[in-house]
Amino acid sequence: MAKVVTTIQRADPAVIDGLAAAGVATVHEAQGRIGLLGSRLRPIYPGARIAGSAVTISAPPGDNWMIHVAIEQLQQGDILALAPTSPCEDGYFGDLLATSAIARGCRGLVIDAGVRDVRDLTAMGFPVWSKAVFAQGTVKATLGSVNVPIVCAGAAIEPGDVIVADDDGVCVVKRDDAASVLAKAQAREANEESKRQRLAAGELGLDIYDMRGKLAELGLKYE
Amino acid sequence: MAKVVTTIQRADPAVIDGLAAAGVATVHEAQGRIGLLGSRLRPIYPGARIAGSAVTISAPPGDNWMIHVAIEQLQQGDILALAPTSPCEDGYFGDLLATSAIARGCRGLVIDAGVRDVRDLTAMGFPVWSKAVFAQGTVKATLGSVNVPIVCAGAAIEPGDVIVADDDGVCVVKRDDAASVLAKAQAREANEESKRQRLAAGELGLDIYDMRGKLAELGLKYE
Amino acid sequence: MAKVVTTIQRADPAVIDGLAAAGVATVHEAQGRIGLLGSRLRPIYPGARIAGSAVTISAPPGDNWMIHVAIEQLQQGDILALAPTSPCEDGYFGDLLATSAIARGCRGLVIDAGVRDVRDLTAMGFPVWSKAVFAQGTVKATLGSVNVPIVCAGAAIEPGDVIVADDDGVCVVKRDDAASVLAKAQAREANEESKRQRLAAGELGLDIYDMRGKLAELGLKYE
Amino acid sequence: MAKVVTTIQRADPAVIDGLAAAGVATVHEAQGRIGLLGSRLRPIYPGARIAGSAVTISAPPGDNWMIHVAIEQLQQGDILALAPTSPCEDGYFGDLLATSAIARGCRGLVIDAGVRDVRDLTAMGFPVWSKAVFAQGTVKATLGSVNVPIVCAGAAIEPGDVIVADDDGVCVVKRDDAASVLAKAQAREANEESKRQRLAAGELGLDIYDMRGKLAELGLKYE
Amino acid sequence: MAKVVTTIQRADPAVIDGLAAAGVATVHEAQGRIGLLGSRLRPIYPGARIAGSAVTISAPPGDNWMIHVAIEQLQQGDILALAPTSPCEDGYFGDLLATSAIARGCRGLVIDAGVRDVRDLTAMGFPVWSKAVFAQGTVKATLGSVNVPIVCAGAAIEPGDVIVADDDGVCVVKRDDAASVLAKAQAREANEESKRQRLAAGELGLDIYDMRGKLAELGLKYE
Amino acid sequence: MAKVVTTIQRADPAVIDGLAAAGVATVHEAQGRIGLLGSRLRPIYPGARIAGSAVTISAPPGDNWMIHVAIEQLQQGDILALAPTSPCEDGYFGDLLATSAIARGCRGLVIDAGVRDVRDLTAMGFPVWSKAVFAQGTVKATLGSVNVPIVCAGAAIEPGDVIVADDDGVCVVKRDDAASVLAKAQAREANEESKRQRLAAGELGLDIYDMRGKLAELGLKYE
Repeated sequence: MAKVVTTIQRADPAVIDGLAAAGVATVHEAQGRIGLLGSRLRPIYPGARIAGSAVTISAPPGDNWMIHVAIEQLQQGDILALAPTSPCEDGYFGDLLATSAIARGCRGLVIDAGVRDVRDLTAMGFPVWSKAVFAQGTVKATLGSVNVPIVCAGAAIEPGDVIVADDDGVCVVKRDDAASVLAKAQAREANEESKRQRLAAGELGLDIYDMRGKLAELGLKYE
Repeated sequence: MAKVVTTIQRADPAVIDGLAAAGVATVHEAQGRIGLLGSRLRPIYPGARIAGSAVTISAPPGDNWMIHVAIEQLQQGDILALAPTSPCEDGYFGDLLATSAIARGCRGLVIDAGVRDVRDLTAMGFPVWSKAVFAQGTVKATLGSVNVPIVCAGAAIEPGDVIVADDDGVCVVKRDDAASVLAKAQAREANEESKRQRLAAGELGLDIYDMRGKLAELGLKYE
Repeated sequence: MAKVVTTIQRADPAVIDGLAAAGVATVHEAQGRIGLLGSRLRPIYPGARIAGSAVTISAPPGDNWMIHVAIEQLQQGDILALAPTSPCEDGYFGDLLATSAIARGCRGLVIDAGVRDVRDLTAMGFPVWSKAVFAQGTVKATLGSVNVPIVCAGAAIEPGDVIVADDDGVCVVKRDDAASVLAKAQAREANEESKRQRLAAGELGLDIYDMRGKLAELGLKYE
Repeated sequence: MAKVVTTIQRADPAVIDGLAAAGVATVHEAQGRIGLLGSRLRPIYPGARIAGSAVTISAPPGDNWMIHVAIEQLQQGDILALAPTSPCEDGYFGDLLATSAIARGCRGLVIDAGVRDVRDLTAMGFPVWSKAVFAQGTVKATLGSVNVPIVCAGAAIEPGDVIVADDDGVCVVKRDDAASVLAKAQAREANEESKRQRLAAGELGLDIYDMRGKLAELGLKYE
Repeated sequence: MAKVVTTIQRADPAVIDGLAAAGVATVHEAQGRIGLLGSRLRPIYPGARIAGSAVTISAPPGDNWMIHVAIEQLQQGDILALAPTSPCEDGYFGDLLATSAIARGCRGLVIDAGVRDVRDLTAMGFPVWSKAVFAQGTVKATLGSVNVPIVCAGAAIEPGDVIVADDDGVCVVKRDDAASVLAKAQAREANEESKRQRLAAGELGLDIYDMRGKLAELGLKYE
Repeated sequence: MAKVVTTIQRADPAVIDGLAAAGVATVHEAQGRIGLLGSRLRPIYPGARIAGSAVTISAPPGDNWMIHVAIEQLQQGDILALAPTSPCEDGYFGDLLATSAIARGCRGLVIDAGVRDVRDLTAMGFPVWSKAVFAQGTVKATLGSVNVPIVCAGAAIEPGDVIVADDDGVCVVKRDDAASVLAKAQAREANEESKRQRLAAGELGLDIYDMRGKLAELGLKYE
């Protein structure tokens, strides 16, 4: 049953921006090593680091009609997240849709399918994480849904969840957990900083984390 | 039966250059969403955008002998297109062959196999679209053919067809269709420009393309 | 049986640096077209070209404990080489481990699994060749071994073997063969230079390598 | 946070058995073409057709400890559904675990990872749908969870949802939808029977489904 | 441009049946090691060995409408060959379509996508070679073409070409070459029979094919 | 450097047969969870369970010449193990080579490439574990080596090592370890038998292996 949910809850913008600054790896660790989308999603250019509220799209293979529908639902700071209903690598999205999405405040696209016009998208600074770069055109013939729960590259995403994406890939944070995850991420970063300095000085993780006893106990032998 | 066809027809150079300027995605759409090579072919460096006449190579797995044969058949503005006779990712091509190809006027290589010396090729500005970067060396022991019809990464290519390649991948245009496809591509670009401006101003594709009625008729519900 | 071998032999540093300068493709050819790791290992950023002595790690899937153990075994100029005991793409390695490895003189990491914090690693100039970029965190629960023979991305590596890595991928040279392989690589480069000049001048490989007779003898037909 | 939910709701056993009889393709269509697990999950032997209530397992890569925990939670007619927390193909499950699962009333296993002892499992008539057959042993070192929501081969599964599996693959039906989906599946089957007879008699789908007008309207040409 | 070509040429039925008897490997060798479809196409059950005239289908991803159109074009002894216009593994074909195809004389299906109802298809004895078994349903919304040239799993197929398929996979023979390929295939089989007897008696291929001299000449050393 | 080693050591035939009886999963566990070849190697038919001494082959992609050379080196009870020098799925082996291998006492083939004539091989009862079934023919043009160390599907194999293969895949046992591994395998089997009976009676692994305390200690919560 094809539908568009027009009212979704979003997390606090300051929290969202904090999660972007923390980055994917830290956020993923902070929330207990969950929420990663599959490694097949890669950025079309290096260096982007964003977070935003998910406007989700469930679309048939080779049919990008629902992206037009979803763009109307965008608010400033949102990220589009598209999962095809079956595996597909067609180029659902290009420079015209990016122009439209940017005009509506969209920060980027996460898509378990293909993207095209990547030179233009790079020039526009519109980041996309996709499983393929592929120029294959799509049709507008069959309905899908917008702002429904999806599974994208192996991760369950609810509309309004926070998407975090950078060079390491993409992570989703449940909307209700966003603030607490940010707090844990920041604590983790603070903690890492002192470790980084000790490691840079040549101290070993074996000693900093006090691992030698446990390794010996489990039977590790040095020859 | 191994053979080299020494006389092939080529498209009009001005048309070829026009197709390069239009780019893969536009050309693919303009000719009716056909002609793309598979998304596994990726450029070894970003930013190249070329078109040229295909000098085709059918080569055994792990044997690059026929590239030497093909280079003799190159004319200014051509592109080498190689399909192995069975799946292979060996590095058929490196900086020496690129040096030779460039000397004969070649604009680039499209290969459903591997390439090596990619640092040198990048420095030389010789673009390659390949399915792998792999240093594996090849032999020169078994014949293949040059300028015969091939299937490369899922697309049928005749010698003299126009290859268009950029960051979105690779597309082939039948030689006889090149001029008409260019005309359609240019019309498409002109048409897109006005759309782009309206989208950039915040107008929605739903309205520009008058989609709301059709979506409702098919049963899309807003909640 | 989990163990750490603390004393390994290394090749001559000058030889190692010579192999780095020769690069993967040349080294691979010089030693008889052997020693390449699979093409699935890709650098996280372009342009790095290194060689070093392998400190090997055999680690369980999703468990990076042994990297801490291995870092203690590093000497100036070494390269870490990790093979999981079964296929895995988790992010075993990030910026903290890189900080530690750099402090111990490590030149890079070759890993048939995932890596994370690639933006930081790039900024630090610590090169990694991996089969995935994936933020998935790992545990420290199960032992593995350090400085034992491993098979990494299809290539057998002994501790102390020389790893050579650049944009073309990764190659391993047996420690005892390092000097002779370097000699052959340098001879090959010298020989290639004259060929490069002749090819650049438009001479054909068919003539330089005297291939026409053999091709005809095998039955190649020109039409 | 590792946990075991000990009380889950299950669908009506008669409904579950009805869904098994309908089979994966029909159930998938009946519920609106949703719920399929990825095609990488294949049965270890042909001919099995089962349905049951999902007892879900989230397990670390290469660690099958939680299967032992999950078996205690099994009730007559249940199906184990395991998703690793990152991609893995290790053999989490073999004949001993199957013996135990059978003793607790388990009908089969759906696992987005590997399985082993497939000859024994086949002889025992214990069906498994897995992404690999692989003997690689696993450890028991790190916690996971039982009866929590998982994403398995791209499909979201809640504990107590109905798993349907046959030669076509695996489908999940939300527990609350099970009865209505069964009703639709049975209606679909009844409807298909009359179609089957007409098709078998040589009548065309073009006529039975009255497609010719629509095809012509969209522009299909006969030459 | 969507179209259906209603008149195609077919090869001699006796030749077609002869090619079926020869089998894929022999036919492939007899025609010069060309014409194989990719190894990703596997039979849904072992033991089928067929040949027939190709009725080709070019279909959009996830849309099986054109199969209904193609069935009308079938003649006794034909084989359906479907290539999606972009990579897709949806289940385009199941037992109802098979019922219809059989009623029109169809011998089997070759599809570079998915198939479902494989238990029923097996029971019906309708063989399918596909890249996936997947229950995913398809729509009937977008046109494709019937009896146009396609590239299916990497092989170019013209309507009326002879498809040969067995446990080794699928091969296509150009219609005009069918008789000569059959003659070569039969000659090859006759020749192989005497070789088979000598090999079965323990004679070595090294001697039968007189390989020792050539091996020595190329430098093979025995230690 | 192409060579054939004509004298290799083999393990005790009784030990080899004992390992076959134990099977891949048990042998793999008995030797410390090492030695498995990648799961991409699958048997061409179910039910075979063999062990034998490895006669190894390193062959160029698409060139099966060295199989003829290797067959001469076979002794009663041996298994051929072939690794291509770069990834390849061509059909190196078919019914004629199988006829010859059987005549020399060969028990089967393990090949990280393709095989063909699988219907005939099945009828002959000659088991093959391969990464593909593919009819693609190969040439006899370039040398390789026989009875040298190889890496096959990710596992290092020395000539004379024991190959064990069954429906679970393929495992290699170092020749010198064969007897001790067999002893451990048999001990493991004896130990498993009592476990199997207790599990079949409904006792839980949680209790048999005394896991509850450790799980609680690590923090597993029951809700």
